[in-house]
Amino acid sequence: MIFGSKGLVFLFNASKKQRVPFVSLRVLSSVSGSSSSATVLLPQCLGELFARPPRLNSDVTVQGWIKAVRVQKNIAFMDISDGTTYQNLMCVIPPELASNLKTGESIQIRGLWCESKGGKQKYELKIPKDYKISDEFDNCIKVIGTVPENYPLQKKFHTQQFLRTIPHLRWKTNVLSSILRFRSHVETSLIAFFNEKNFIKTNPPLITSSDCEGAGELFKIESTSNEKNPTEKFFGKDSYLTVSTQLHLEVLCMALSRVWTLSPCFRAEESSTNRHLSEFWMLEAEIAFINDVRQLTKFSELMIKHVVRTLLDDSSEIGKNLIESRRGRAVEEAIKIREKWNFLLSKDEWDCITYTEAIDILQKAEADGIVKFKFKPTWGASLQSEHEKWLAGEYFKSPVSVTDYPIELKPFYMKINNDKKTVACFDLLVPEIGELVGGSIREHDLFKLSNEMTRRNMKVDDLNWYIDLRSNGSVPHGGFGMGFERLLCYLGNIENIRDVIPFPRSAETLDC
Amino acid sequence: MIFGSKGLVFLFNASKKQRVPFVSLRVLSSVSGSSSSATVLLPQCLGELFARPPRLNSDVTVQGWIKAVRVQKNIAFMDISDGTTYQNLMCVIPPELASNLKTGESIQIRGLWCESKGGKQKYELKIPKDYKISDEFDNCIKVIGTVPENYPLQKKFHTQQFLRTIPHLRWKTNVLSSILRFRSHVETSLIAFFNEKNFIKTNPPLITSSDCEGAGELFKIESTSNEKNPTEKFFGKDSYLTVSTQLHLEVLCMALSRVWTLSPCFRAEESSTNRHLSEFWMLEAEIAFINDVRQLTKFSELMIKHVVRTLLDDSSEIGKNLIESRRGRAVEEAIKIREKWNFLLSKDEWDCITYTEAIDILQKAEADGIVKFKFKPTWGASLQSEHEKWLAGEYFKSPVSVTDYPIELKPFYMKINNDKKTVACFDLLVPEIGELVGGSIREHDLFKLSNEMTRRNMKVDDLNWYIDLRSNGSVPHGGFGMGFERLLCYLGNIENIRDVIPFPRSAETLDC
Repeated sequence: MIFGSKGLVFLFNASKKQRVPFVSLRVLSSVSGSSSSATVLLPQCLGELFARPPRLNSDVTVQGWIKAVRVQKNIAFMDISDGTTYQNLMCVIPPELASNLKTGESIQIRGLWCESKGGKQKYELKIPKDYKISDEFDNCIKVIGTVPENYPLQKKFHTQQFLRTIPHLRWKTNVLSSILRFRSHVETSLIAFFNEKNFIKTNPPLITSSDCEGAGELFKIESTSNEKNPTEKFFGKDSYLTVSTQLHLEVLCMALSRVWTLSPCFRAEESSTNRHLSEFWMLEAEIAFINDVRQLTKFSELMIKHVVRTLLDDSSEIGKNLIESRRGRAVEEAIKIREKWNFLLSKDEWDCITYTEAIDILQKAEADGIVKFKFKPTWGASLQSEHEKWLAGEYFKSPVSVTDYPIELKPFYMKINNDKKTVACFDLLVPEIGELVGGSIREHDLFKLSNEMTRRNMKVDDLNWYIDLRSNGSVPHGGFGMGFERLLCYLGNIENIRDVIPFPRSAETLDC
Repeated sequence: MIFGSKGLVFLFNASKKQRVPFVSLRVLSSVSGSSSSATVLLPQCLGELFARPPRLNSDVTVQGWIKAVRVQKNIAFMDISDGTTYQNLMCVIPPELASNLKTGESIQIRGLWCESKGGKQKYELKIPKDYKISDEFDNCIKVIGTVPENYPLQKKFHTQQFLRTIPHLRWKTNVLSSILRFRSHVETSLIAFFNEKNFIKTNPPLITSSDCEGAGELFKIESTSNEKNPTEKFFGKDSYLTVSTQLHLEVLCMALSRVWTLSPCFRAEESSTNRHLSEFWMLEAEIAFINDVRQLTKFSELMIKHVVRTLLDDSSEIGKNLIESRRGRAVEEAIKIREKWNFLLSKDEWDCITYTEAIDILQKAEADGIVKFKFKPTWGASLQSEHEKWLAGEYFKSPVSVTDYPIELKPFYMKINNDKKTVACFDLLVPEIGELVGGSIREHDLFKLSNEMTRRNMKVDDLNWYIDLRSNGSVPHGGFGMGFERLLCYLGNIENIRDVIPFPRSAETLDC
């Protein structure tokens, strides 16, 4: 017997209505010398089955996990899912076949592909009482893998908080698996967008010797074989995990003009919030021959709108995947998400204000008693998360770009405006999340860049290669970074960033 | 004046044939308060221009870097490139405009879009002697960024070895920039393949607490803020950079059935070869409901053939990009690459042998005096790189899968065959490279997996979550990993893995 752990494998033959020993199927036959006869490449998955439904009343074999079983007197219903689509397959079977089946078990089932009369779904898999399967298949339901009595994912509502305590099992739930499919779809949509715009996707390094943002909170890395000899360094010098790939992207931008990446970045941030991770994926883009920050705000708006358009495209299942899995939990939530997507496309151009205007709005709102902030909005001080969320969520009720922040709030590489007080940068703020995208025009003039680095007392040695770009055919350029997980949270109405990445990493959290 | 470093910006007006001060173009206008008037989103790039050529004899403005200038008595030729396509734009200009232009400089040029009489290219940009440009543009050539006298990338042959010494500039060369475009195209092609097959692209973690392969050679990571206090651990335990995402992919496979990733992996390998990196990108896929290693060999063959088919697709520029950039250097090389691609598709199914058969072939070849190996091929010992390369390159002259290696050569998670001596695994060997893909059916039976871990004296604590997958609806499954850079080397006929990744990392190498 090949399948099933713990010897709890039972098989049923509907026509004989009795337990029979398991006989292996040819497709899944035993592997001895595995280079034996060729087999069917991959067994059909539910995603394929729903996309290209078989002939009605034809025999169909599927595999998946049981999401729920309801046994009535004369009939039993079972939902199975294999995670390749948001749709469960409803199986209508004789009750005696279902009595031992449990939620969470993996099974193989063979039956007739029928139109469903229930209305909720178009098709169902039916095992009639007198179902005769072909000689090749002796049984119509086979348990592949069992579950323990206390299997945690019973058919009932689970809080995300509880699910985070079982990180190796939680993706089996419909809501969370739909988020992983959503993540994959959004990435594909971004790839299409950047390809269409002649961008090259590239992979800057994760191991670096420099601290791009100068913000500290780095992870240091070293080979375990040098652990006992701290003077030996694997790379010949101290090495860190990157916090942003921007400086390296600029190198590639000076060769390819339009580059982007979707790359892991790392921050050793001690604080634990629902929008920070120690390991996250960042989309960064760098564009040559631009010199106006409005080109960047507009471009990043186009990028996000492109993704939203893909999600709303009724000819694909991509948006439905997320919405339908929510509808199962709460209809209002599903409606809200679709409304948000429609709203994001409804405005021709999202709002854009300067930092100075933003401070004015915030101060006036506080003076008028409209809102009370914990941190007083002051020109020269950072916009706090509460300010960002209020601006986008309450004042503009829409994504809004804030441009031209004071020099001292931003890193050394940003282009200083003619006022000598602000830099040509922007943050795109969105309701609920706050900062989603941040970018700037970069200083491409050697002299000005060097001056600013000197003024900031920066160690220049590690960045000689970066500075040298400015003497070898330098061109005006700019770019931006967007936290990929934040985009997913925003577009998917997902509260906690830990639920949009398979294995979230943060201080004290390294469970599996 | 906005553009240009070092104040070396000169501008020419062809009609007046004299230097004039630079007047900024509206599109690239000065940024003061950058939230001013909206501007053209992104300036046109060469990729767009060649894909959708403008009307003949219309005025066209482009920006890019000078690849070469040839000044003759009555005419000058200049090639410019912006890296968005393999094609240079040839500019035909009055010699007096070209006399001060240098290879490597970034320029903006305006002229007439004309059919080219040269034959090598279809179009060219022409500045006739009497060219009158519109009022808006006072000048037809503008130097944006200059280069020093010793600019290293003069128009001549550079060895890759030399280019690796200027890691921040080398991607400006045609051959290397074509490799980055190639990399991007191949990734897009893989995404299309996996989407079509209902796989979900996902991102397993890079920071882990376990050593998946048990092979050592790990990088350890720690927050810099804990440097002085080694008992404090950011994650509460020792943490490492992943060497393979497989174990985590298996978690997701048990929820989504078909998952894949293209993810950075890390190995602190001290040895420096032309096919190893400390930081590399690995494609890994994990598939539920399969139990025959031949499903995996066949599937990975389909995957690679899909990419090759994309490269050979004449309706796109994707394959041409690489081939044409090589042709510039050596016609034979370009022909060889195309021949290889055609060859890879010519066989219906690539060869597949067992490890035992492979050892027989190697031993017989040595006994017959056909080949002499440094390492004697022996059953039970690893296949050495020389064996792999000879099998694929000399004996089969084609990619070949070797399956069913001895248990002791492979990790704990592989399914043990009925012979109890071998495991259901495979390596796909290819000419020149050796191992390109490696995979296996995984042991999905709790009891057998635990037994094997005990037999190997493995610490089980860190992998409880992995083992627990086997008691919660376990299903037969398998997967494989493929070094993304190795695939690029193989398909692109590129000798050194350092030339297919933007910033290669290996022992003692962390230049920029």
